[in-house]
Amino acid sequence: MKFTIDRTTLSDALTNASKASAVRSTIPALEGVLICLKNGVITITGYDLEMGIKCMISPTESFEDGEIVVNAKIFGEMIRKMPAGIVEITSEGDNVTIKSGSVVFNVVGVSGDNYPNIPELKNDICFNVDESVMKSMIRQTIHAVAVTDIKPVHMGSKFHIENNILSVVSVDGVRMAKRVEPVTYNDIDFVVPKKTLDEFMKMLSDEPNDKKISICIDRNQICFSKEDYIIISRLLEGNFIDYDKIMNFEEKSTAVVNATDFSTALDRTLLLNTDKYKCPVICTFKDDSVHIEIKTSVGKMNDDIPIKFTGEKLEIAFNARYMIDALKNSECDEVRIDFTGPLFPIRIRPLEDESFVGIVLPVRSK
Amino acid sequence: MKFTIDRTTLSDALTNASKASAVRSTIPALEGVLICLKNGVITITGYDLEMGIKCMISPTESFEDGEIVVNAKIFGEMIRKMPAGIVEITSEGDNVTIKSGSVVFNVVGVSGDNYPNIPELKNDICFNVDESVMKSMIRQTIHAVAVTDIKPVHMGSKFHIENNILSVVSVDGVRMAKRVEPVTYNDIDFVVPKKTLDEFMKMLSDEPNDKKISICIDRNQICFSKEDYIIISRLLEGNFIDYDKIMNFEEKSTAVVNATDFSTALDRTLLLNTDKYKCPVICTFKDDSVHIEIKTSVGKMNDDIPIKFTGEKLEIAFNARYMIDALKNSECDEVRIDFTGPLFPIRIRPLEDESFVGIVLPVRSK
Repeated sequence: MKFTIDRTTLSDALTNASKASAVRSTIPALEGVLICLKNGVITITGYDLEMGIKCMISPTESFEDGEIVVNAKIFGEMIRKMPAGIVEITSEGDNVTIKSGSVVFNVVGVSGDNYPNIPELKNDICFNVDESVMKSMIRQTIHAVAVTDIKPVHMGSKFHIENNILSVVSVDGVRMAKRVEPVTYNDIDFVVPKKTLDEFMKMLSDEPNDKKISICIDRNQICFSKEDYIIISRLLEGNFIDYDKIMNFEEKSTAVVNATDFSTALDRTLLLNTDKYKCPVICTFKDDSVHIEIKTSVGKMNDDIPIKFTGEKLEIAFNARYMIDALKNSECDEVRIDFTGPLFPIRIRPLEDESFVGIVLPVRSK
Repeated sequence: MKFTIDRTTLSDALTNASKASAVRSTIPALEGVLICLKNGVITITGYDLEMGIKCMISPTESFEDGEIVVNAKIFGEMIRKMPAGIVEITSEGDNVTIKSGSVVFNVVGVSGDNYPNIPELKNDICFNVDESVMKSMIRQTIHAVAVTDIKPVHMGSKFHIENNILSVVSVDGVRMAKRVEPVTYNDIDFVVPKKTLDEFMKMLSDEPNDKKISICIDRNQICFSKEDYIIISRLLEGNFIDYDKIMNFEEKSTAVVNATDFSTALDRTLLLNTDKYKCPVICTFKDDSVHIEIKTSVGKMNDDIPIKFTGEKLEIAFNARYMIDALKNSECDEVRIDFTGPLFPIRIRPLEDESFVGIVLPVRSK
């Protein structure tokens, strides 16, 4: 294999693909990326048997097709530290030479034959979503994905289409987050692992643009594609919690709160919470203010935030961290917080828009 | 004690003073900072029995003198997270109240009586140095301070005045760095611990200005003062190596090199050096270029950099990391590198200026 390419183009592709390489593996090829030149296209692949990332880039000049596996970390750093401009990559047998100007690196690679095959999708089921919409759907819900594996299916977000509405939903034992958006496609549902969503989200732009990403499903695999990048991942299996039942309750009281003010105040209470001692904050919602109080072994704090409140005065205790996450991910100035009582779920939604719903479970105070 | 103060002023002083607080100590007061209000001045003190930092700040209003020790980390974070503006601090017995707007924190402090006394200096011996000059003298030499304690006196930098020239010198087993500057003071020498220099350097501005810092010595203590900040530290004792003998050799050959080009090339060789395998780089200096070569278990690299060279062709091996440090800390475009042979010290100096000298010891190649 022999080609020349712009250093920055190659370096960016290596950075992206190597996110799917195994950090440490008993199979050395999995710690590497597969570099493949075929018909004038370079494909860089990282794959850890659960998730794979492919990046397609164009060489400046291609001389000889071929493929080789190189250590993702070392090769990536070498390319990053090459002089700016054109780099020449040559592989002969297992020997890889990287050249630019007077600099010459030689490293040993692994034959491409030893690299595992990434499952191919037949792509029967495929739909498109706007790039920036997809990014915000993942961003607003990913905080509520469970990190421990009591129920492995909850270690991912559920994608669910019903009546041309796509919902992305995450739950852990104590909270939920849901974001909806209209799409045009048949009813379907599947659960994508958090790790895949994390990496995919990083590749997406926040800026509204007219680019679409495509999502394809095939049995237990998913493929997200964006221009020259593809992420392939297994899906999670199992029974996802019936979240609609928990989210759709009739509230007995409602507070309208400035999200930043409330989350700043709650953030201060965390100063008194050492890692060992997870103490809930006690909030008393009434008329025109919420009184915030916390008492731990470190000290105590109290504060009052103005709100609009309808319903009966309510004292409720919860983990401040979870409420802060819900407030921030509502991504709006004012939120509406609904209650049915001190022991029932708390629902957080943007005041002027119902595309996001956060649920936080309260705790018993003492 | 009771006073009000601007949040940012207090927060900055706490950040600086707490750098001298113990991170973990069997004496809880040492994990704290002493806050003392007396005659309209607030002094914030951190002290870990080796180094102390005092910051003097002015309250907005002072109501009652007093002193209290508070946990440096928790108190600092509370102040940082208070609403911007004026904060009110009150202590009654061990109880400390921090108030701003509607936010009220209560924490338990420790009586100031339990705080250790920082040694007072009589300040017989005192001289001044420009702030930015002092900063660059520490910055250019601190990399060569020994980090292990085979000879504890080398875990600091030697300050040495002779014939109105101040030298700051650091050495470890394999390299040296020296920076000189004219001052007006009597001959004297002392060794300041690296930790003290690290913290002091952070307080100094890079920008040339007409501010002076003062340095006072008293038996085994040093006091650096800058406006409202004071750092007090014990000095290191022992016989510092006789560096002048090693630095003042007559060279047999000299290379003139672009410091950035050479250090960039050497930096690339480090990619092949895993942590376990510290492999030297082999450089061949001749006529108009230096050939750089490295071969490790990971792979090999070579490069050529143009230089001006006088003397006989020379092959010499050294640790690339140490040479990079010397090149960078020469803080100039072109350096002059002097050799007497492959087994003798290498001397690195700015081409147009002799205020900095770096020494790197070579290693035997194979």
